[in-house]
Amino acid sequence: MTASGRILVINPNSNDDVTKGISEVLDPLRLPGGPDIECVTLSEGPFGIETQEHVESVTLPLRRTVVERNDVDAFVIACYSDPGITVCREATSKPVFGIQESGILAALSRGERFGVIALGPQSIKRHLRYIRQLGLESRLAAERPLHLSVAAAEEADAYPRVLEVARDLVGEDGADVLLLGCAGMTRHRLPLEQALAVPVVDPVQMAVAQALTAVLLGAGSS
Amino acid sequence: MTASGRILVINPNSNDDVTKGISEVLDPLRLPGGPDIECVTLSEGPFGIETQEHVESVTLPLRRTVVERNDVDAFVIACYSDPGITVCREATSKPVFGIQESGILAALSRGERFGVIALGPQSIKRHLRYIRQLGLESRLAAERPLHLSVAAAEEADAYPRVLEVARDLVGEDGADVLLLGCAGMTRHRLPLEQALAVPVVDPVQMAVAQALTAVLLGAGSS
Amino acid sequence: MTASGRILVINPNSNDDVTKGISEVLDPLRLPGGPDIECVTLSEGPFGIETQEHVESVTLPLRRTVVERNDVDAFVIACYSDPGITVCREATSKPVFGIQESGILAALSRGERFGVIALGPQSIKRHLRYIRQLGLESRLAAERPLHLSVAAAEEADAYPRVLEVARDLVGEDGADVLLLGCAGMTRHRLPLEQALAVPVVDPVQMAVAQALTAVLLGAGSS
Amino acid sequence: MTASGRILVINPNSNDDVTKGISEVLDPLRLPGGPDIECVTLSEGPFGIETQEHVESVTLPLRRTVVERNDVDAFVIACYSDPGITVCREATSKPVFGIQESGILAALSRGERFGVIALGPQSIKRHLRYIRQLGLESRLAAERPLHLSVAAAEEADAYPRVLEVARDLVGEDGADVLLLGCAGMTRHRLPLEQALAVPVVDPVQMAVAQALTAVLLGAGSS
Amino acid sequence: MTASGRILVINPNSNDDVTKGISEVLDPLRLPGGPDIECVTLSEGPFGIETQEHVESVTLPLRRTVVERNDVDAFVIACYSDPGITVCREATSKPVFGIQESGILAALSRGERFGVIALGPQSIKRHLRYIRQLGLESRLAAERPLHLSVAAAEEADAYPRVLEVARDLVGEDGADVLLLGCAGMTRHRLPLEQALAVPVVDPVQMAVAQALTAVLLGAGSS
Amino acid sequence: MTASGRILVINPNSNDDVTKGISEVLDPLRLPGGPDIECVTLSEGPFGIETQEHVESVTLPLRRTVVERNDVDAFVIACYSDPGITVCREATSKPVFGIQESGILAALSRGERFGVIALGPQSIKRHLRYIRQLGLESRLAAERPLHLSVAAAEEADAYPRVLEVARDLVGEDGADVLLLGCAGMTRHRLPLEQALAVPVVDPVQMAVAQALTAVLLGAGSS
Repeated sequence: MTASGRILVINPNSNDDVTKGISEVLDPLRLPGGPDIECVTLSEGPFGIETQEHVESVTLPLRRTVVERNDVDAFVIACYSDPGITVCREATSKPVFGIQESGILAALSRGERFGVIALGPQSIKRHLRYIRQLGLESRLAAERPLHLSVAAAEEADAYPRVLEVARDLVGEDGADVLLLGCAGMTRHRLPLEQALAVPVVDPVQMAVAQALTAVLLGAGSS
Repeated sequence: MTASGRILVINPNSNDDVTKGISEVLDPLRLPGGPDIECVTLSEGPFGIETQEHVESVTLPLRRTVVERNDVDAFVIACYSDPGITVCREATSKPVFGIQESGILAALSRGERFGVIALGPQSIKRHLRYIRQLGLESRLAAERPLHLSVAAAEEADAYPRVLEVARDLVGEDGADVLLLGCAGMTRHRLPLEQALAVPVVDPVQMAVAQALTAVLLGAGSS
Repeated sequence: MTASGRILVINPNSNDDVTKGISEVLDPLRLPGGPDIECVTLSEGPFGIETQEHVESVTLPLRRTVVERNDVDAFVIACYSDPGITVCREATSKPVFGIQESGILAALSRGERFGVIALGPQSIKRHLRYIRQLGLESRLAAERPLHLSVAAAEEADAYPRVLEVARDLVGEDGADVLLLGCAGMTRHRLPLEQALAVPVVDPVQMAVAQALTAVLLGAGSS
Repeated sequence: MTASGRILVINPNSNDDVTKGISEVLDPLRLPGGPDIECVTLSEGPFGIETQEHVESVTLPLRRTVVERNDVDAFVIACYSDPGITVCREATSKPVFGIQESGILAALSRGERFGVIALGPQSIKRHLRYIRQLGLESRLAAERPLHLSVAAAEEADAYPRVLEVARDLVGEDGADVLLLGCAGMTRHRLPLEQALAVPVVDPVQMAVAQALTAVLLGAGSS
Repeated sequence: MTASGRILVINPNSNDDVTKGISEVLDPLRLPGGPDIECVTLSEGPFGIETQEHVESVTLPLRRTVVERNDVDAFVIACYSDPGITVCREATSKPVFGIQESGILAALSRGERFGVIALGPQSIKRHLRYIRQLGLESRLAAERPLHLSVAAAEEADAYPRVLEVARDLVGEDGADVLLLGCAGMTRHRLPLEQALAVPVVDPVQMAVAQALTAVLLGAGSS
Repeated sequence: MTASGRILVINPNSNDDVTKGISEVLDPLRLPGGPDIECVTLSEGPFGIETQEHVESVTLPLRRTVVERNDVDAFVIACYSDPGITVCREATSKPVFGIQESGILAALSRGERFGVIALGPQSIKRHLRYIRQLGLESRLAAERPLHLSVAAAEEADAYPRVLEVARDLVGEDGADVLLLGCAGMTRHRLPLEQALAVPVVDPVQMAVAQALTAVLLGAGSS
């Protein structure tokens, strides 16, 4: 371990722009004397992760990356499907965080019932299966789909649609905390928070914050 | 908000030694240029919080402290019963974290089933009620009592008993992550982690880390 | 214990009219030779209990009342938030009943799924947290808000709005038994029952009936 | 409805001694000017209800009794398997109470986790199925078998075995309220309560108390 | 046991046309050299099973049939309320299948969340109670009523209404597999499957298929 | 579709002896005129599937096999971890069955609470996560480990250990139906069933039986 430690954030898709966007939203977590936060692109990954095949295609490349970079102090897998999280945890004694899991856990201390802004119906199905696996379904208000692609959801002009879905999660489904259901929607976080007066959680930031905590406290470094 | 923000950690009991001990274990979370972490003693609190009457006796004093100190950026209530957490959240738009809630949420990303090392049967009863309220009972392996007082559990010579209970949580109950069920057991964390090869979570550190995250990301500061 | 026993019903708000109203609806439970049912106002209480701060402000005064009046045979806390129920139970070996808990338990033997007529969204949030704590969420059809104050909900002219909400709970949410989610709506019980042909449960009456049972059977008198 | 109302308690087995025993333990609920409590034997019933066949054999005779005696104000089916409860409820607008359901609901307001003293493993299997149907399994500590027949469990000399099982429910399983899992064990209630310092609930008394409440409040009389 | 075994399918209502219809949809499960599938009418049954009284009226006649025909290798009770399933299982060591239970279990391997096309609100109430008893409610999307009688639902001209309800289960409630909630709707299965592109499960076929499996593998024949 | 259809059973490990053993236990499901049941070895698979890495290593090869062999009518993945089941289902409109899922669903109609005979603690952890994902944990009695390798568990001389674990599942954990938690333990099924008088379910046979049913009824053939 270096003096202050290192966190490796792996973007499982091969889109360098996404990696760059992820890195930018992590700036508030880069502290003087704090752990180094490095964001890398999984070159073997698909351009976007939209299907279960995409998910499966990155599990072993992610594991290989974890094994090769096992000199860092914590890992974050920066895709909302948490691909390969179990196999990566098996491959290292260092903590590994997935952004969906970390995002939901963070949301649970900011509200009674969380609502998720998802891209589409297929991802909702995948998420619900995972939420049941995590045993956390009793606090879910609802997931609602944007019916947008990853790329479109990241754009500034997606905001009206994002707001509409967020408003329904709060007004119709009773959510009092919202979770962005994709790695690339951080730009909408503060505007939503201001418009709706409920906390809005960005899962990438939360997973990296959990990694930061683990590094600062020395978890898994033994 | 100051440049880097401030976190107020409130020890709800009136024992200054406990406050001092809490402050020491937070040193790893005090970062150059990062938020200030201030630990205060609730002078109106009982010397230790062991009964429901003790819990109720601190809820409104905690609320008053939150109102008076609303210039900070986040609050942590540093007693494992999470006393007054709801009323404090009602009193401020700043995030408020309770150490039991934060500790359990942190444990959920480090193992499949968490075990809690508790002081005694009465506190277990209170915790189980709260875990059901949080909707998180499906991941609980078990709570087991030390049959020790708060003061005794903090001492170095409590370690053999703490280890015995921890071993049963892992071996008998199937826990693969442990949670220290009291604000003052931090000194046992690393020895347990090394002895049993499972992550051991200190709830005070985790709640303050969540507060740190919130401050760094600007939650609730709007 | 006197020959037939005594039940103390404590109205945690300081509104004597409410106490008087509560006492009136308990007349059917005042039996010749049966336990005495005394209704008292908590003078330290707020005029109405609408916030978590109001809830917390009465827990220790309620406890004090329980300790001072421990010569009675059973206690009822007559506010739908069941404030202070745990601390009061800790303070006495006599049974203590809360009207929300007793109301829900009574409803569960009168229908498959219960619907609650609540005052507003904030109280629904508080109730849902409590229902999860009680482990009874699987039988909840829904809670729906009147968007009325306590005082307004008690008035005869609130009936059309109460009926509208009740009708939605039955027609939209599938409730087949209804629960009045406030201590002061008893006057609407029979009209609703006749209009909708489902049982309608008044929680104050049910908590006092449970206390009556406990006294008649000698619970906690040992 | 007569002035004060009538409750019909039906013992579904044909053993008149059991009916007589049931009637005796209901004396505390027979109030001057209060509802009449009549206990009848189902002559078509088996001598004891121990198998599912026994259960099924009484459902329609119970229904016929309910139809024939529909001039009373409430019914209680006094067998812990709650035989025929659904079909009887379908047959009348008067409330019908089953002793298992009423006993569990009563226990839930007297402790956090209830333990049941059952006759044997087969009845436990039947009860667990029913508890799941009621959606109340999250509060069950455990059921433990006496390995005794109904007749034997009622005898005074069964007490040491009953106490042993009760002690295990409290000490091993964490129950803090106990439920007698059979209509005929009332004589053990107070001794158990005194020996173990936890509330002990007799289900027959509780179901009749619920019926009493319903009659006093006029439920179903419209 | 004969060389290839025998399955007895019992239609608990006395309508021979229904029995005939059931037998026809089982033709694909009648294999050369495979078990014989015999469908019989319970002559003591009501003409249709629509109430709880109807359900109870067939439990002991079903048990008698099972005892008399215990030379077969497996039994199927062909009514969606699964009447008498527990008492029949008690009466024989041969496997007994109920069509609701088998239908739900089959649906669970064909989709994430199942939707049930039911006849009316009363049967939905009965089904939900049973689904809770089976512990399978977490995968239920919804049940929706046709508001049709058994006889009407079986007719070809019921299809538009069946399709409408099925479409709502998929579109509104998120079901991705559908279950026909009555023994006589098989004719709608394939058209629905083609119209909605989700699997549609006929419960009679599934229960008999489970019986077929049990017979082929020798379950219970020892 | 050929006249009678074809089922492809894929053994995801590369051990041909296992494939051969699987094929043998399927003989009772090979019916004259019934679907053809072909068992193939996944040549890319590891020799045994014991870790999460092994699981991940076969998901895409399984998907490729499903795509290449999409002319068959149903697929079975014959490893108890159900590797790749979601991605295979995404890749075909034909039904795909996993042996753990099918085994559990089959067990649920043969008993109240199922017990699983697993190889070791690591596989139990994986299974429990999956059982939660399936929403079926409420009927699980327990899983217990053999502490044996796959190869050892298949041998005749493992029977005493298998019987010991099975006996504990029934006697200590209250299971009334058992499930073999591995593809290769079929030989122990009948001896266990005879020794313990509870149904014992072989998951491979059950998944193939579900496939057989689907083919016979024409599921997914549209």
